[in-house]
Amino acid sequence: MIVIMKPKSPLNEIMRLKQKIERENNVSVNVIQGKEYCVLGLIGDTTGVDAGKIRADEFVEDVKKVQQPYKLSNRMFHPDDTVVKVGENSIGGGRLAVIAGPCSVESEEQIVGIAKDVKRSGAKFLRGGAFKPRTSPYSFQGLKERGLELLKIARKETGLPIVTEIMSTDLIDKFVEDVDIIQVGARNMQNFDLLRQLGKTKKPILLKRGISATIEELLMSAEYIMSGGNENVILCERGIRTFETYTRNTLDLSAVPVIKKLSHLPVIVDPSHAAGIWWMVEPLAKAAVAVGADGLMIEVHNDPANAKCDGQQSIKPKVFQELMKDINRMEDAMSCRKYNALNV
Amino acid sequence: MIVIMKPKSPLNEIMRLKQKIERENNVSVNVIQGKEYCVLGLIGDTTGVDAGKIRADEFVEDVKKVQQPYKLSNRMFHPDDTVVKVGENSIGGGRLAVIAGPCSVESEEQIVGIAKDVKRSGAKFLRGGAFKPRTSPYSFQGLKERGLELLKIARKETGLPIVTEIMSTDLIDKFVEDVDIIQVGARNMQNFDLLRQLGKTKKPILLKRGISATIEELLMSAEYIMSGGNENVILCERGIRTFETYTRNTLDLSAVPVIKKLSHLPVIVDPSHAAGIWWMVEPLAKAAVAVGADGLMIEVHNDPANAKCDGQQSIKPKVFQELMKDINRMEDAMSCRKYNALNV
Amino acid sequence: MIVIMKPKSPLNEIMRLKQKIERENNVSVNVIQGKEYCVLGLIGDTTGVDAGKIRADEFVEDVKKVQQPYKLSNRMFHPDDTVVKVGENSIGGGRLAVIAGPCSVESEEQIVGIAKDVKRSGAKFLRGGAFKPRTSPYSFQGLKERGLELLKIARKETGLPIVTEIMSTDLIDKFVEDVDIIQVGARNMQNFDLLRQLGKTKKPILLKRGISATIEELLMSAEYIMSGGNENVILCERGIRTFETYTRNTLDLSAVPVIKKLSHLPVIVDPSHAAGIWWMVEPLAKAAVAVGADGLMIEVHNDPANAKCDGQQSIKPKVFQELMKDINRMEDAMSCRKYNALNV
Amino acid sequence: MIVIMKPKSPLNEIMRLKQKIERENNVSVNVIQGKEYCVLGLIGDTTGVDAGKIRADEFVEDVKKVQQPYKLSNRMFHPDDTVVKVGENSIGGGRLAVIAGPCSVESEEQIVGIAKDVKRSGAKFLRGGAFKPRTSPYSFQGLKERGLELLKIARKETGLPIVTEIMSTDLIDKFVEDVDIIQVGARNMQNFDLLRQLGKTKKPILLKRGISATIEELLMSAEYIMSGGNENVILCERGIRTFETYTRNTLDLSAVPVIKKLSHLPVIVDPSHAAGIWWMVEPLAKAAVAVGADGLMIEVHNDPANAKCDGQQSIKPKVFQELMKDINRMEDAMSCRKYNALNV
Repeated sequence: MIVIMKPKSPLNEIMRLKQKIERENNVSVNVIQGKEYCVLGLIGDTTGVDAGKIRADEFVEDVKKVQQPYKLSNRMFHPDDTVVKVGENSIGGGRLAVIAGPCSVESEEQIVGIAKDVKRSGAKFLRGGAFKPRTSPYSFQGLKERGLELLKIARKETGLPIVTEIMSTDLIDKFVEDVDIIQVGARNMQNFDLLRQLGKTKKPILLKRGISATIEELLMSAEYIMSGGNENVILCERGIRTFETYTRNTLDLSAVPVIKKLSHLPVIVDPSHAAGIWWMVEPLAKAAVAVGADGLMIEVHNDPANAKCDGQQSIKPKVFQELMKDINRMEDAMSCRKYNALNV
Repeated sequence: MIVIMKPKSPLNEIMRLKQKIERENNVSVNVIQGKEYCVLGLIGDTTGVDAGKIRADEFVEDVKKVQQPYKLSNRMFHPDDTVVKVGENSIGGGRLAVIAGPCSVESEEQIVGIAKDVKRSGAKFLRGGAFKPRTSPYSFQGLKERGLELLKIARKETGLPIVTEIMSTDLIDKFVEDVDIIQVGARNMQNFDLLRQLGKTKKPILLKRGISATIEELLMSAEYIMSGGNENVILCERGIRTFETYTRNTLDLSAVPVIKKLSHLPVIVDPSHAAGIWWMVEPLAKAAVAVGADGLMIEVHNDPANAKCDGQQSIKPKVFQELMKDINRMEDAMSCRKYNALNV
Repeated sequence: MIVIMKPKSPLNEIMRLKQKIERENNVSVNVIQGKEYCVLGLIGDTTGVDAGKIRADEFVEDVKKVQQPYKLSNRMFHPDDTVVKVGENSIGGGRLAVIAGPCSVESEEQIVGIAKDVKRSGAKFLRGGAFKPRTSPYSFQGLKERGLELLKIARKETGLPIVTEIMSTDLIDKFVEDVDIIQVGARNMQNFDLLRQLGKTKKPILLKRGISATIEELLMSAEYIMSGGNENVILCERGIRTFETYTRNTLDLSAVPVIKKLSHLPVIVDPSHAAGIWWMVEPLAKAAVAVGADGLMIEVHNDPANAKCDGQQSIKPKVFQELMKDINRMEDAMSCRKYNALNV
Repeated sequence: MIVIMKPKSPLNEIMRLKQKIERENNVSVNVIQGKEYCVLGLIGDTTGVDAGKIRADEFVEDVKKVQQPYKLSNRMFHPDDTVVKVGENSIGGGRLAVIAGPCSVESEEQIVGIAKDVKRSGAKFLRGGAFKPRTSPYSFQGLKERGLELLKIARKETGLPIVTEIMSTDLIDKFVEDVDIIQVGARNMQNFDLLRQLGKTKKPILLKRGISATIEELLMSAEYIMSGGNENVILCERGIRTFETYTRNTLDLSAVPVIKKLSHLPVIVDPSHAAGIWWMVEPLAKAAVAVGADGLMIEVHNDPANAKCDGQQSIKPKVFQELMKDINRMEDAMSCRKYNALNV
C-alpha cells in the first residue's frame, strides 16, 4: 500500500503517521521524499490495513493499493486452477461445462422436457429458477418450493445435476439438501449475510457478478464464502450496466482473462442475461468459449413466447442443439484455448 | 405500452398477437400501420403486462412502456406529498430533516458524545451503523447487537430518534422494537425478500438507491415495501457508479427533482457516501438543499482519523455545526425552494 | 415515432399538437386514447422529425422513436452486406480482414520490419500512426508527415495497403493521395466537420466508435460520411468506457451482432485499445472472430518496452504469428460463423 | 509515480528497469522491497514520464501516478484563482457569471429579443449557436456565418459579450475577430488540433467537459490550450453519460469542488444540456450555485415549442427571470459560499 502525503506536509506529521501505521498494523513503513510529494510505502501483509482510515488523516492526499485485498481466491497464493466437482461432473480445469434450462420452472412437463432436450444436445447441468428475483412485485415470482420439487423430478429423469438461485438465508438448509449447485444472483452478490452463511456449507456456489460490480468486488464476495470454509466457488460473468441501451447489459468478456489471471476459481459466462435478446445468445456464447470461459449458462425454453419470465432471451432447444455442435467444433479447433495464467 | 412489430410482419401474425395480448391481459389493442413499421398500442392498465413475454414473440421488434410500472409510489395516483412521521419529527413536506452521526457505533462515549453534538447543531435524527455491510470479510463488521444497545442509550440521552441499517430478515423483529427508522442499504436495494418482509411492518423505511439502480428501479423497490402495506418509505440518493474515479460515486442530484415529479415519497440525500471524501460533504450538502431534497444524511465523527470505518468521509462536529448554520440561512433565503410537482 | 401526452391533457391541446406535427412534417398522426395516457402515433417517414421540438411542447410527457434515425447505413433499406474494396483486398462479406502494425510509426527500419513480419503471418493491411491524438500535450505526438512517408515506403516494400488516422480537415487531400484507408479515431467520432469533408471523398473510412458512443450514434456518424456520397465506411468497436478500471475500456463484443442486424456496413474489432494490456489481446481477438467480426485491428511492435506509445498493449510479432494460426484454425471450424441478419 | 513489479521478479530485472527509467527520464528511482511485491518510487518531475512505456516492461505489474499530469492548470503551482476578463465583465473569483440565450440563433428578432430579456434579468453574457454540432446530418445545422452576424447585432443592441461554439480550425480567425468567448463543445473536448490552435490565440475559451471525460482529462485538454500560451480557459461541467436514462446526462456537481481543489481555473455549470428537460433547469441551476460554481450557462428561448433545436431543455424568459431572483437571494445568504481551496 502506498500513502501519498499532501504537498508540503510537515516532517513531524509524516513521521507521526508512519509510526501510527506501524503501531496499528503489522507492517513497516518506508518514507520516500519526492520533489512535490512525500510517499509512504507499507511493507508487509497489508490485506487487513484499512485504507479509509489512513485517508481520513488530514495530511493524506491519497492511498493506493499494491497488494490485492483478497487472499483465498488469489492466484498468487494458489497457482493451480480450482476444479469444482459436482457428482461426476466438474466445472473448471478442462472441457467446457454447459448449464442450460429455462429461466423459471413452470410445470413438470416443461422442466422435464427441456431437461431431456438440453441433455441430448450436450448440456451437463440443468438450470431453472424456483425463487425468482423480479424488479416488480407484480411479476411472477416463481413456483418456489414446488419449483424445487419439479427440478428434483427432472434430475431424477435425466441425471443432470440442478442449479437454482437462492434469495434468502432461511432456505439454505433446504437448498443444501435439494440442489447440486446453489446460485447467488447478481442482485445478491453483496448480500454479505447470505454469502457468509453459504460459506459454512460445502455446496458448490455459483456466484454471479453484480451488474455494477468490479472484478475486484466479485472476488471479495467470493472471499466471503471462502473465508467461511467453502472453497467450491464458481464465478459467473453475466453483463454489466453501461450507457448502451440496445442490449440489456454489456457482456464484459474481458473479465474472463482478467479473472483467470487474478484468481484460480473457475469462471463461466451467461450470455442470455447479458444480451436480454435471444438472437444474440449464439454469437456471444461462441465468443465466451473463444475468450477462455470454463463454462456457459444458457436459457433454453421450448415455447419462449409463452414463458413465464425472460422468454425474450431464451433460445429454443433446436437452436441450442445447433449452438452446441458449433461449440464442440470450435473447442476441437482451439488446441491452445486454455489461458495459461503462469505465463503472463 | 407500445409494441413495435418487425418490418414486413404478415397481417395475420399481427392480428394473432393483438388477440393474444387482449386475451391474456385486461387491455384492448389498437393497430397503427405506419410506412415501415406496424405498431400496437395497448389501452388499459398495463402495469401487469409482461413486456418480456411480448418481446419474445418472433414478430416483435421492440416494446416501449408508456405507463410507469409502479402504482403505489406513483404521484399520478397520489398527488400530495407523503410526510413520514417519526415520533414528533417527520420527513417530507416541510423543513429539511437532517440525520447525522458516525458511520459505525464504536462505544457508548463515542455515540452519546456525537449525538449530543449533532443535536446541538440542529440534527433531528441520529444515524449509526451497528451491522455494517463491508466489501471485505476482513474489515470491521460493526458491534452488532451491542451497537443497537448503544444507539438506544444515545436516544435516551438526547431524545433523537435512531436510524440504522438492517442486513437480514432475521433481525426484523428486533429492529422494529429498537429502532425508529430502518435503513435498507444500497447493496440491499433489490434484496426483495428483505423488502417484502419490511412491507409487513409499519416502521419508516429509509431505502437507499443502489449504486447502479435507475430511478425507476428505486421506485419499484419502494413498491415492494408499499405493496405489503407499509407506506412509510423515505428514498435516499447516495451516489451512483460512473466512470469518474476521483469521487467514490457520482452524486446524482438530478434524481431529486425527478423523484419529486414521479413520486409523492420524500427523498433525502447522503453526500458523505457519494463523495467518499470529507471535504466535499459541505458543498454537496448545500447543493442537495438547493435542489429541493427533503433531508440530508451526513456522517459526523469526533475523531475521523481513528474511526473504525469510513473516517475519510466523516466531518467533525465543528464543521457540521458551520454547515448547519449555512444551510439554515440558505433555507430562509429560498422562499420558493420547494419543487412544485403539480406545475410541471 | 410515438408521442406520449401528459395525463389529463385537454383534447383541444392534443388536436392542436396533432395538426402542428402533420403541418410541419410529411406524416399523418393517429390518436390513441388510453386509460391514463393519450398517445400520438406518427405515420410516414419520421427520420427528419425533430423529437426535441415535440418534447418542448408543454403537454408532452415523452417521445419515443420507432424508426431508426439513420437511412443510408440501415440494413432495412439495404439488406445485403457492404463489402469495402481496397485495391485487391476487401473488408466485409467473407474471410476475416486483419489489420496489424505499431501504434505509431517510429522509423523506417521499425515500420518496414513490422510490416514484413505481420504480412508473413497473414495480415492484409498495415496500420501505423503518423498523427497521434494524445491525452497529454507533453506526450509524443507522432512523426506526422514524415510518418506518412515511412508508411508509404513500408507499403512499397510489402504491398500491404496502409491505414492511418486523420485528425484534421487540413490534411484530407494529403491522406486521400497517400493512404489506403483513412481512420477516424474514437475521439473524433463526432467531429462532424471532419466526417462531412470525408464524405466528399471516395476513400474507405475506418470509423471508430467513441468510448461513450451508443451504437446508434456510431451509425449516425457513419450517416454523416455516407450522406456526403462516400459509402465506403468500415465500423470499428474498440471498447467503451465503463466503471470497470482493470481494463482500459470494456470491449463491447455485443456491438458486433447488433451492428450486423441494424446495418449492412462491415464491422471490425480492435482488442488492443480496448484492453490496454497486451496479454488480453489474444483471447479478445479470438472472441471477436467468434462473435462474427469482419476483421481485427491489432497493435504489433517488435520492441514494446521501447515503443514511443502504447507499448503496454502491443504484442510481439511472434505472439501475433501464433494468434493468426489459432484464428485460421477457428475460422475453418466455424462453418456457420457468419451472422445471417436476414433470419433474425 | 509508483511502479509495481510482478511478484518474484528477479533482482537483476528490477535493477535493469530502475536504471532504464533513470537514464530516460530526469528522475531518481527508489526501490522498496515488500513481502510479495517490489515497488519502485520515482522521484523528480514525472509529468513527462510515459507510464505506458513502463507498463510495457514484461516484469511490471502496474504503474500508479502520484503527481498530477497537468502543470499549467494545476493549483499546486498556481494557488490563486484565475479570473478570466471579458471586456468589463469577468468569470471567476467573485460573483456568479451568468451566460444565457437560445440553443441556436434563428433570426435577428429572436436573438435580439432574447438578449434584451436575459440582460434585464441579470445575465452578463449572451450565448447562441451559429455552427451546431448535431448527432444527425439531417438536423438543422445552424445559420453559420449568418448566425455570427446576428449575434454581433445582439451584442451591439445590448452590450452583452457573446459566447458561441467553434467546430473547426478553419474558422478560428473569424471567431477571434467576432466573438468574445469561444466555446469548445463537449464532443470536441479532445479535438487536440482545435485545442492547440486555440492555444495560440488570446481569446477566452469556454471548454466543456466531454460526456465521458474524467476530470483529469478535462484538465489535460485545458493544458493543451494553456501550453500554447493562452491561459484564459473557463471550464464547464455539463453532465456525463451514465446508465440513468431519465435525464439526458447526469450532472456531476461533485466536479465543481474537485476542479476547484485541483485547478485554479474558473468552472461554470450548464444545467440545460445535462438535464435535457426544461423543468429541471431551475433546481439544478440553484444546486450549481450552492456547490460553488463560478457561473451558469442556461438556455433561454422565447418560444421553446418552435425552437429550431433543443427546445425541450430551454426555459422561457419569465422563468429565467424568477430563477435569477432566487439565485441572487441565495448568493446573498451564502456568506461563505466560496470554496476555499487553500484550507483543504
